[in-house]
Amino acid sequence: MPRLVVRSFAISLDGFSAAPGQRQQAPFGKNGLRLMNWVFATRVVNSKFGRPGGDEGLDNDFMAKADENIGASIMGRHMFGPPPDVADKPAWRGWWGDNPPYHHPVFVLTHEHKSALEMEGGTSFTFVNDGIESALEQAFAAANGKDVRIAGGAATVRQYLKAGLIDELHLVQVPLLMGQGERIFEDLGGVEERYECVEFTPSKAVSHLRIVRSAR
Amino acid sequence: MPRLVVRSFAISLDGFSAAPGQRQQAPFGKNGLRLMNWVFATRVVNSKFGRPGGDEGLDNDFMAKADENIGASIMGRHMFGPPPDVADKPAWRGWWGDNPPYHHPVFVLTHEHKSALEMEGGTSFTFVNDGIESALEQAFAAANGKDVRIAGGAATVRQYLKAGLIDELHLVQVPLLMGQGERIFEDLGGVEERYECVEFTPSKAVSHLRIVRSAR
Repeated sequence: MPRLVVRSFAISLDGFSAAPGQRQQAPFGKNGLRLMNWVFATRVVNSKFGRPGGDEGLDNDFMAKADENIGASIMGRHMFGPPPDVADKPAWRGWWGDNPPYHHPVFVLTHEHKSALEMEGGTSFTFVNDGIESALEQAFAAANGKDVRIAGGAATVRQYLKAGLIDELHLVQVPLLMGQGERIFEDLGGVEERYECVEFTPSKAVSHLRIVRSAR
Repeated sequence: MPRLVVRSFAISLDGFSAAPGQRQQAPFGKNGLRLMNWVFATRVVNSKFGRPGGDEGLDNDFMAKADENIGASIMGRHMFGPPPDVADKPAWRGWWGDNPPYHHPVFVLTHEHKSALEMEGGTSFTFVNDGIESALEQAFAAANGKDVRIAGGAATVRQYLKAGLIDELHLVQVPLLMGQGERIFEDLGGVEERYECVEFTPSKAVSHLRIVRSAR
C-alpha cells in the first residue's frame, strides 16, 4: 500500500519549523534558515546543487533516503510561495528556479485559483483549492503506486497529522532556539493516542525521530 | 557568582513537561510519568531510593551532577502539591514523604499562605507569595554562596526564562509524544536573542541540551 510520509522535517528545540517574517529573501522567516544548516552540510544536498564536498554519515544517509520511492508531494501555500504582498506574485513559480528538486507532481494547498505549472526536470505544480483530502487523493493518483510525501510547512503537516492521515513522520530536532514561529505540535491533543515515536537516532548535529501511526 | 540553573528538566518531543490531569496519584498528569523513565533507569536515582542496579553512562552522569553545588531550590505550586480540590490539602507536606530528596531549603511559589515546613534530612519548604524575584532573593540568601536550582514545573521555568533570570538551563528531550500539557516554550518570543543552545549531547535514550544566556 502506498503511504503518506513526512521526511527530514526540521523543528527547533522549542518546536518551531519556521520563524515569523517570511518573505522572498527569507523563506524560513527571520534567521529561520539556521534550521537547515544540518541539511546544507550533507554531501547529498551539496551534490544536488552541483557543489563538491559535504559530510557523509547519518544525516547524509537520511537525506539520501528522503526522496526514496516518492511519486508525488504535497505542500502548503507558504512553502510554494512568499506572502501575498509580493509584487511579482502572479509570475511566481516557486522558490526553486526553473528546475525544482522534486522531479514529480507537486500539489499545493491554497485558496488561490491558479493554473498548473509544468517545470523542467519532471516537476509540476498543481494548485488544489478543495482541501487536504482532495490533494491527497490527487497525489496518490499521480504517484502511480509510490508513496506521497508532505514537503511542508508546519501547518500542512499539522493538518494531516490531526486528521490521522500520515503513516510515518520523520522529524529532525535541531538544537537551537527559534523563540517563535509556526509549529507542528499545536492543538494536537489526542495525537499521543494515535501516534508513537518508535525510533530515536541522534547524529552529532541533530536528533532523528521516527513517528508512526499506532496499531489500532 | 552564584547562578540560577535548571538541571535535568525533561520535555517530550512535542514540548510538554507534564500532561493534563495532574492529581495525587499522578504528579505528572495522565501517563505523564513516562517522561521520567530515563531518570528511573539510572543507577544514581535507584540508589537514592535505596534500590540496587540501574544504568551507568551519560544519563546517569547528568543525574549525578544535577545536585552539584546547589544550595537551595525554587518550585511552583503544582510541583509541591496536587490541585486544590484534594481533601487532605492542609496536611499536605509535598510529594516526597518525610525525607524529601532536596536536603536544602526549597522555596515554593504560591498564592496560598502557609507556614514553613521543616522536613527530615535538611529539607525545608518555605511558601513565597510575593513573586519570582522575591523567591529568588530568598533562595540566593539561603544558598549561602552556592547555586540555586529551579526544580520545576514548566510554568515556573518559563516565568524565570521570560524574565531573563536563568543563567543555565539543562533540558532533556525525551523521544515520546505527550500531545498536550504544560510547556516551557510558550509565549517566549525574544528568548532566541537572549539565550542560545551551546551543547547537544544525545544519549541512547534522550537528548541533553545546555542552554545559556548569551553574552550581551
